[in-house]
Amino acid sequence: MALWFTEQHTDDVRFSIHIKEQLYSGKSYYQQIEVFDSYEFGRVLVLDGYIMLTEKDEYIYHEMMVHVPMACNPDIRRVLVIGAGDGGTVRELCRYDSITQIDMVEIDEQVVKVCKEYLPQTACRLEDPRVHIYYEDGLKFVRRVEDTYDLIIVDSTDPFGPGEGLFTKEFYGNCFTALREHGILTNQHESTYYDSYTSMVSRTHRRMRSVFPVAMVYQAHIPTYPSGHWLFGFASKNIHPVYDFKPEIWEQLGLETKYYNTQLHTGCFALPNTVREVLEHA
Amino acid sequence: MALWFTEQHTDDVRFSIHIKEQLYSGKSYYQQIEVFDSYEFGRVLVLDGYIMLTEKDEYIYHEMMVHVPMACNPDIRRVLVIGAGDGGTVRELCRYDSITQIDMVEIDEQVVKVCKEYLPQTACRLEDPRVHIYYEDGLKFVRRVEDTYDLIIVDSTDPFGPGEGLFTKEFYGNCFTALREHGILTNQHESTYYDSYTSMVSRTHRRMRSVFPVAMVYQAHIPTYPSGHWLFGFASKNIHPVYDFKPEIWEQLGLETKYYNTQLHTGCFALPNTVREVLEHA
Repeated sequence: MALWFTEQHTDDVRFSIHIKEQLYSGKSYYQQIEVFDSYEFGRVLVLDGYIMLTEKDEYIYHEMMVHVPMACNPDIRRVLVIGAGDGGTVRELCRYDSITQIDMVEIDEQVVKVCKEYLPQTACRLEDPRVHIYYEDGLKFVRRVEDTYDLIIVDSTDPFGPGEGLFTKEFYGNCFTALREHGILTNQHESTYYDSYTSMVSRTHRRMRSVFPVAMVYQAHIPTYPSGHWLFGFASKNIHPVYDFKPEIWEQLGLETKYYNTQLHTGCFALPNTVREVLEHA
Repeated sequence: MALWFTEQHTDDVRFSIHIKEQLYSGKSYYQQIEVFDSYEFGRVLVLDGYIMLTEKDEYIYHEMMVHVPMACNPDIRRVLVIGAGDGGTVRELCRYDSITQIDMVEIDEQVVKVCKEYLPQTACRLEDPRVHIYYEDGLKFVRRVEDTYDLIIVDSTDPFGPGEGLFTKEFYGNCFTALREHGILTNQHESTYYDSYTSMVSRTHRRMRSVFPVAMVYQAHIPTYPSGHWLFGFASKNIHPVYDFKPEIWEQLGLETKYYNTQLHTGCFALPNTVREVLEHA
């Protein structure tokens, strides 16, 4: 059947995927939510016209958001996840027995409902007893928290629409306060390849750097995101993601991963010069 | 204007770019050659319907093909380039004063003519006095060469059509013979993300490994290639690309690059687990 979903990566670049069927379409208070089944990528979650995840490659994003910080500090117990309504980040976190508490703050309850029904691959661990879901604005949630979390993962949409507040300096400042002594924050950090995204990367990096003593950027290949070259932020009070990284401890856990490994952990912080320049001039 | 060029990355995935105008279209003895001018990527070279390069990101491919091996052995003097009709690989090689001879073997003279006219960004150094162009089949050329080159770069099209012979075991064996004592070979090595490409990666790696004592794979982000995650082969008689790498020597050259740097040199050999598995089972 010739049903195609097309995302405009820029005004002049289109990425199109062949669809088997549309499984869900609905509008929540915050955004347009769609789930498609596709021939190449399995099921696909689309919010406001942008691909959020596909079953074929969501593991790349979720592994890189979770295992990079987890491998930097084996003593992480309490985790705050902001956004992440599809459940993929929580799924990866639940693989660590050492984690005792996962608070997830998702603004849009409808996303969680839809993912539970149509995307069990990512939503499969949202019922874990360590997981507590708060349906509210992450920006407001962190305002009232102090010295509580070892790790905050900001698994948000882009810096416009419902996710906009999660890229502000005020938000990062509150995250700093909400983190404990060795706290780490990771977030999705957009991409520099297309000019229309570059300013978001530099603005986000500038704000994180102004709040956290350690503020770095790492990369992964995510074929279904614009340009396929996606960036993540790593910020912390005092843990350096490469110098303080102890690969042996993480390897002893015996977790099987499809993208992440301890060699790649170091490698993903080696950025191309074009990206370095954007960050240095941020 | 609504003129779009579409490449089918698989039967079920399309990548489309907005075109300003078609600058050239012609059929050589070997292939269909097209040059477009596009809004997002500048000029684009298309062979038999596949994007070979765009002005926006060709630097990634060419820098990674050239600087990775060059930074492993500062004594490289004589280089054989197979394919590479667009001139981008030769342009990067010409930046090294230490190189005394660049033999380029391109099967399709028409590609070189078209690139000289429409793609001066890549073809700009083909008149360098060290460059000798042979219009013939690279497979046959290497059969008659022994102990001559320090570096062979196989900058070919995909392993079907005119480039097919450049992925055979016989070809790699002849390259081994054509290389001198510390010889290195790099090649474009396809991608594992889409199933339709995976078997080409494993077959190519298996053949290179059967001929060369050192046979590794490294990666780069090339947004205009299928999946954006592209692989390169590094094979040598005795030089290891990471353990024998001396970053200080390369940095002393003072070459400015847009993608490659010495930290990324090591990082690009850190492959995701899915790629590692394909290579281990090759």
